[in-house]
Amino acid sequence: MKIDNSPARGNRDLLPGAVSVRDRVLGEIADVYRRFGYQRIETPALEDIKRLQSGEGGDNEKLIFRVLRRGLPDRVEPDTSWADVVDLGLRYDLTVPLTRFFGNNQAVLPNPFRSFQFGPVWRAERPQKGRYRQFYQCDIDLIGEPTVLAEAELIEATTEALARIGLSGATVRLSDRRFLTALAAFAGVPEEATASFFITLDKLDKIGWSGVRSELLNRGLDKTVVDTVVEVVGELGGLSSDKLVEHLSTVLPNLSAAVLSDLDTTAQCLRRLAAEREVGEESAVRKESTLHWEFDPTLVRGMGYYTGQIFEVGHLDMPGSLAGGGRYDQLIGRTLGKDVPACGFSIGFERIVELLQQPLGSSGVAVLVEAEVDTTRALEFARGLRAEGRTVTIMRRQGKFGAQLGRLAGWGYTSYVHLRSDSDGEPEELLLDSRSSKK
Amino acid sequence: MKIDNSPARGNRDLLPGAVSVRDRVLGEIADVYRRFGYQRIETPALEDIKRLQSGEGGDNEKLIFRVLRRGLPDRVEPDTSWADVVDLGLRYDLTVPLTRFFGNNQAVLPNPFRSFQFGPVWRAERPQKGRYRQFYQCDIDLIGEPTVLAEAELIEATTEALARIGLSGATVRLSDRRFLTALAAFAGVPEEATASFFITLDKLDKIGWSGVRSELLNRGLDKTVVDTVVEVVGELGGLSSDKLVEHLSTVLPNLSAAVLSDLDTTAQCLRRLAAEREVGEESAVRKESTLHWEFDPTLVRGMGYYTGQIFEVGHLDMPGSLAGGGRYDQLIGRTLGKDVPACGFSIGFERIVELLQQPLGSSGVAVLVEAEVDTTRALEFARGLRAEGRTVTIMRRQGKFGAQLGRLAGWGYTSYVHLRSDSDGEPEELLLDSRSSKK
Repeated sequence: MKIDNSPARGNRDLLPGAVSVRDRVLGEIADVYRRFGYQRIETPALEDIKRLQSGEGGDNEKLIFRVLRRGLPDRVEPDTSWADVVDLGLRYDLTVPLTRFFGNNQAVLPNPFRSFQFGPVWRAERPQKGRYRQFYQCDIDLIGEPTVLAEAELIEATTEALARIGLSGATVRLSDRRFLTALAAFAGVPEEATASFFITLDKLDKIGWSGVRSELLNRGLDKTVVDTVVEVVGELGGLSSDKLVEHLSTVLPNLSAAVLSDLDTTAQCLRRLAAEREVGEESAVRKESTLHWEFDPTLVRGMGYYTGQIFEVGHLDMPGSLAGGGRYDQLIGRTLGKDVPACGFSIGFERIVELLQQPLGSSGVAVLVEAEVDTTRALEFARGLRAEGRTVTIMRRQGKFGAQLGRLAGWGYTSYVHLRSDSDGEPEELLLDSRSSKK
Repeated sequence: MKIDNSPARGNRDLLPGAVSVRDRVLGEIADVYRRFGYQRIETPALEDIKRLQSGEGGDNEKLIFRVLRRGLPDRVEPDTSWADVVDLGLRYDLTVPLTRFFGNNQAVLPNPFRSFQFGPVWRAERPQKGRYRQFYQCDIDLIGEPTVLAEAELIEATTEALARIGLSGATVRLSDRRFLTALAAFAGVPEEATASFFITLDKLDKIGWSGVRSELLNRGLDKTVVDTVVEVVGELGGLSSDKLVEHLSTVLPNLSAAVLSDLDTTAQCLRRLAAEREVGEESAVRKESTLHWEFDPTLVRGMGYYTGQIFEVGHLDMPGSLAGGGRYDQLIGRTLGKDVPACGFSIGFERIVELLQQPLGSSGVAVLVEAEVDTTRALEFARGLRAEGRTVTIMRRQGKFGAQLGRLAGWGYTSYVHLRSDSDGEPEELLLDSRSSKK
């Protein structure tokens, strides 16, 4: 009986070539993060359903895969509600588990605690091209550092990790949730409408200024309010000069000194980092940096928990963002009874591995063994090559010789050795690419 | 409000020290397996519940975490059965996903296909010390190789991987499911009682010969049958000489030539491998091998799907097994409409990492920054050390100096640099271990 062997709807198998790209990318990111003193942690895939539904997950809370309690009766009892029979869910992000992890283990963790996490998360989204119900997230967080040293270090570490995997030429967009709050207040957005104002502004990428304008008006904001927002944003967009703070304090006089001082420090650090990442001839008049940055007054970032600076990293040659993050000083404390400063970054891992070419998975030398050769001899021969540091795959000699060589080349093998019982001395290693087409 | 931050029941957080041991072990196993031409694959955690409950999973099928369908009505409708509302489950092993993966992707996979998998599996077992509801499995499989070359290569690769992670001194116990069937037939176990005979024999470790004896009698077997089993097993235990096959054919004349020839080949390969793994002085009269092996007529292996040779790897200094596997020629074919030869090995990853000491997670140099130092300068100083290849963690100077140094040493840091704004020139790097106790 032949049956359907596809993965469950919205899921996928990862073939060797794809896994090898993913392993390489994760390995390189991990190496950079470790150099900055970050340590990898791991948390379970299953969390208590109540924790996952606490409200911090936003729309993701609607996409939870819910898990039944164990030991339920065979038939469902009448008047059962799902809450009675569900006690666990699959995590939809790595932030909820991180806050729980920190609360559970803080006594034995260094302070500040630098962590990074790689791992699958699950969301029951409608399946669509390139989006899967299980995907990896790749988070880095600094917990316990109250100053923007955290922000500056995380931007440096993340852009360095992206450069290491071949994505140099990062563009960092920077803003601050406190700036957005001041902007809303300055323009006259009523306090109770601030959250929905942010939600609309966040859609600028998708619906443009005309869309934002009409949505804000539909939400009941005055035309003068909307005009002021557009005007202020227009005056501040794309700034990365050392005049940034001066500009900000002029255009938005209600911005607090703390916000200005933090932005000033981060801007200084980014300027310095951009200067160090200049490339080109020593003698060139104008050198090009691999790091660009700007203040982006329209940057919002979706999650409600951000409290300070926020940032997104894009790439010169690509639309959309490769990584994003920000400060969230009130999230971790919610389960601890005290505020704990924290700042984090998330790399869009799935998007990045999609951009990178996936090489063929197989490699090394194939040892083609004729049926009459002793198994002991075949294994010994392979062992000898491995002892020289080679990657060795044993295969039976089968079917037409040329056709088999063609298949080996197609699978990615670079050379082969033909092992026969009648061969004198050491059999010769031959390259595959040329041979495979001749025969 | 302070709330409970423990992981869900039966689950655990992995701290940086534990993760680093796990990463090292996985990395070393992967490196050895790749040298043998094996390629890592990854499959989703969720599988269709029907596939998980197809009967191949044995008792594990009772331990499935069941996942609710999406889009269910808010209230449970009357007369609902769980089968109506559950469509997915979390995988309880990596074998069911492997067979599905092979069926789904065989057109693009090399033949034979050498795969390895690392990944979490889930079982709703009663939580107990050292056993968790989410744990890693570590499988290697060779699909499409019909001869015992597969068995011999897998034993070589697995014992080499164990040696690489520091567990040299492997003892391999070898048997064959076809031997067990012949033994049962020879002793007079009725064919319909063979499966339950295996189940009882498999308990020998736990209940001893007297327990096995009485359980077999209770199952209705004649005393003469049981006596014959005990006698044959007694004559065959612990053999690894080149007389193995001669012995077997004498004691069990109904054993087929194919089984004898396969055991002979594997035995030859193991003898040869043991000889190559001899250690000690060239001049020594008797050298010691790091590999030991024997025929174990009581070896059964739990899963019902094995069809040929089976093996377990233990360690001289430890009870129980570190790895086990065998041939399963009929499992993969069940979803394909044709038999596909296959042989696999599973390393007891969680058991092994428990045996290895967990070092402290932090390492490298801590840069202690006084509050008055510019953030830009702190980041630049750290960057300079990193450029020399160092692992660098920035920390604020806080509290009593000596106490902070003690904490750093406790977290695993080996040295520190004290960064002050009044320091002349490059600040000095000082070792932590000695300083930390003095102050």
